[in-house]
Amino acid sequence: MSRHIRPMIAACGLWSCFASAASGAQHIQGPRLNGTVTKLAEYGAEADGGVSRIGFSDADLAGRSYVMGLMRDAGLAVRIDPAGNIFGRRQGSGNLPAIVFGSHIDSVPHGGNFDGDVGSLAAIEVIRSLNDHHAVTRHPLEVVIWMDEEGGRFYLGSFGSDAAAGQLPADMAGRQVDGGDQLATWLKRAGGDASQLAAARIPPGRVAGYLELHIEQGAVLEKAKVPIGVVLGIVGISSRTCVAKGFANHAGTTPMDQRHDALAAAARAVLAVREEVRAEPGRQVGTVGMLKVEPDAVNVIPGRVTFTVEIRDLDQRRIDHIDARILERLAAIGSEERVSIECTAPEVSRPALTSPEFQRIIHLAARDAGLPAMELPSGAGHDAQNVAQFAPIGMIFVPSRAGISHSPQEYTAPEDVTNGAEVLYRSLLKLDATIGADSPSQSQ
Amino acid sequence: MSRHIRPMIAACGLWSCFASAASGAQHIQGPRLNGTVTKLAEYGAEADGGVSRIGFSDADLAGRSYVMGLMRDAGLAVRIDPAGNIFGRRQGSGNLPAIVFGSHIDSVPHGGNFDGDVGSLAAIEVIRSLNDHHAVTRHPLEVVIWMDEEGGRFYLGSFGSDAAAGQLPADMAGRQVDGGDQLATWLKRAGGDASQLAAARIPPGRVAGYLELHIEQGAVLEKAKVPIGVVLGIVGISSRTCVAKGFANHAGTTPMDQRHDALAAAARAVLAVREEVRAEPGRQVGTVGMLKVEPDAVNVIPGRVTFTVEIRDLDQRRIDHIDARILERLAAIGSEERVSIECTAPEVSRPALTSPEFQRIIHLAARDAGLPAMELPSGAGHDAQNVAQFAPIGMIFVPSRAGISHSPQEYTAPEDVTNGAEVLYRSLLKLDATIGADSPSQSQ
Repeated sequence: MSRHIRPMIAACGLWSCFASAASGAQHIQGPRLNGTVTKLAEYGAEADGGVSRIGFSDADLAGRSYVMGLMRDAGLAVRIDPAGNIFGRRQGSGNLPAIVFGSHIDSVPHGGNFDGDVGSLAAIEVIRSLNDHHAVTRHPLEVVIWMDEEGGRFYLGSFGSDAAAGQLPADMAGRQVDGGDQLATWLKRAGGDASQLAAARIPPGRVAGYLELHIEQGAVLEKAKVPIGVVLGIVGISSRTCVAKGFANHAGTTPMDQRHDALAAAARAVLAVREEVRAEPGRQVGTVGMLKVEPDAVNVIPGRVTFTVEIRDLDQRRIDHIDARILERLAAIGSEERVSIECTAPEVSRPALTSPEFQRIIHLAARDAGLPAMELPSGAGHDAQNVAQFAPIGMIFVPSRAGISHSPQEYTAPEDVTNGAEVLYRSLLKLDATIGADSPSQSQ
Repeated sequence: MSRHIRPMIAACGLWSCFASAASGAQHIQGPRLNGTVTKLAEYGAEADGGVSRIGFSDADLAGRSYVMGLMRDAGLAVRIDPAGNIFGRRQGSGNLPAIVFGSHIDSVPHGGNFDGDVGSLAAIEVIRSLNDHHAVTRHPLEVVIWMDEEGGRFYLGSFGSDAAAGQLPADMAGRQVDGGDQLATWLKRAGGDASQLAAARIPPGRVAGYLELHIEQGAVLEKAKVPIGVVLGIVGISSRTCVAKGFANHAGTTPMDQRHDALAAAARAVLAVREEVRAEPGRQVGTVGMLKVEPDAVNVIPGRVTFTVEIRDLDQRRIDHIDARILERLAAIGSEERVSIECTAPEVSRPALTSPEFQRIIHLAARDAGLPAMELPSGAGHDAQNVAQFAPIGMIFVPSRAGISHSPQEYTAPEDVTNGAEVLYRSLLKLDATIGADSPSQSQ
């Protein structure tokens, strides 16, 4: 237990530290942390300030070498599992399962320098700060850098954390890109082993708990002017592709009452999706993000329109009943418009809730650090949702400027990065004190 | 005046011939005519029965040679004007301006074998039939095959009839395709002369009248089970390109009430266009045919949607006030959706009305031939609308199966082609007797 936080916890109850905490010591060295964020941005850097550090690319491998160096410099024992996940271990005083924390350093193509990077480098900074403060934890700590969270080259999911959850597809090892590059080759370069992917699975009980700091990728914190988000869970996603089939015909020679206009039907569908999502209170969202018109000519009535319908919420039952209502609406619209509307079966990613106990600890850590915090769902996917398959999880958000992410314009201010790392540091120590003990107060 | 139609006209009033006409003589030789339609289809034929005989292509030049051969075989004096329009002249008995009739033989890429071909070959068949019946007309007759009606290679309009109307752009002669093929080169191959394009203009008064037989390219005649359409005019077209600009953002992290969804706004616009077009009685049509979403990803709220708005009607004032109402609606939608919607100035093609006198003559000709006829607008553009700039016009439509056109599935039954040619034949002779005379009866 850190010498530095013990007096504070001793001095106040779980929910009553706020006033005193405003002057609480800061453990994280912000410039040191933000310097590593700036440095990591060099790997895969693009001229406009964006980055392409796609998982299983040369830039990714170079970035991984850089962070492994930081981990070793911080005294961590670094290993790479068969899926290419990097773990850096710091021993604990007790014979306990590890507390794991980290994120990913791969990016989307032409992405930004904060998504994943902040959580990864803050985790390493936490280790350095623990070292600075000669803090000893009961649990071993493991910084993790998950392999290929963004996916896309060989796999659409989050490769490394899916492997840890034992949910990679069976054909993974043999995958190739355009008959050329093989996953197995790139995984070997990354220090993994495609023939041993099953061994990357982490069974329940092996990890005591998982924390991830991440940028919000939305504008809720910024709009609320709150520096710390306590994540309630990662929303589930249900997405379908729908096709409206009418009849393409001459826009001049086909009277209005003889049309089977696939775009008019799709336009009603777009609005019906929004209406059904808005029809009840809650934080659920629904989006038609893709829409393609055929034949797409100024003088031809659209004969076919393909569009996607995506619904997200923390509550799978709410997703399901909104989805069902949308399908009813689409059927009615198709019938009225004399256009067939058919949708694929939904692709479903189920919600992953964070541990209420972890939420409580993050709240407390934020108050100790003098930082206002608010609860919110994560609308974006994260490695944490895969980890939730085998361990309790907690997530901390820091603000994203204008909510922009997956873009070169993605930005989180250095003080927000530092604040997030400080809350991660404090949460980690509270977690170390709390979990596996009968009650928080007993661990003091 | 033909020996064959004189007794019929003598025997009945202008609107009272229907009963007797059901047994009226047929002048056109259907198999001979439809044989030429089948033969022309070989030039630019594609494996699936479609045709690509694009204006200023080798297939087009070969097709033109074929029809010029037919014209010469029919005794016509063939000349090619500087714009490549083919005229085949048959002398008349009087010192009068010519009556011109014909169509075009070029096709859209991957088009069908009836659009243009039917009117062109029927015009030549009419000459053969006049010869068969030793008919003499007061006016000289000229069959015209307009150059490049469909446009697209060097020019988006109808090249030949635009030249005749004196409305080609000034830069026409120098146009090239991708820095390679030059219009001047192809026009020379076609027998034209790019340096003399202005001389292709036909001044008002030079042509006594123009008739064009064409397939409907819509399904109005087929649905009404009426073989002959009397065209009221060629609709005017007003088209705009509009851009809805919202803000592209993460579909998971952006709450419903913080969105600036360009697709939701565009969907409302698509429906508003239809509502405003339908808001009053009439044959006006309005179409959103193109719509492009950016960035067009399942998990991104659309930030930008580009779409077209096209309105067609015979009455330019109606087009204008529907267009104005649509713009008002789009502005209101943009404001409500917090999305800017801006449209280009309209591209306008003004309506071209057919001569009421020519309409009356076509009605009469159809009744004489025992063929039911109905009036309808032409929703598609035709060379006739350019000719209307310098001469009175009339148009005859025959049914298109399922209203399909600009497609290999385009089809008009041989008996409909023959019926159309018969009505063209009879209309031409009535016109010859009528125009330039004080009244129809005086010309008998």
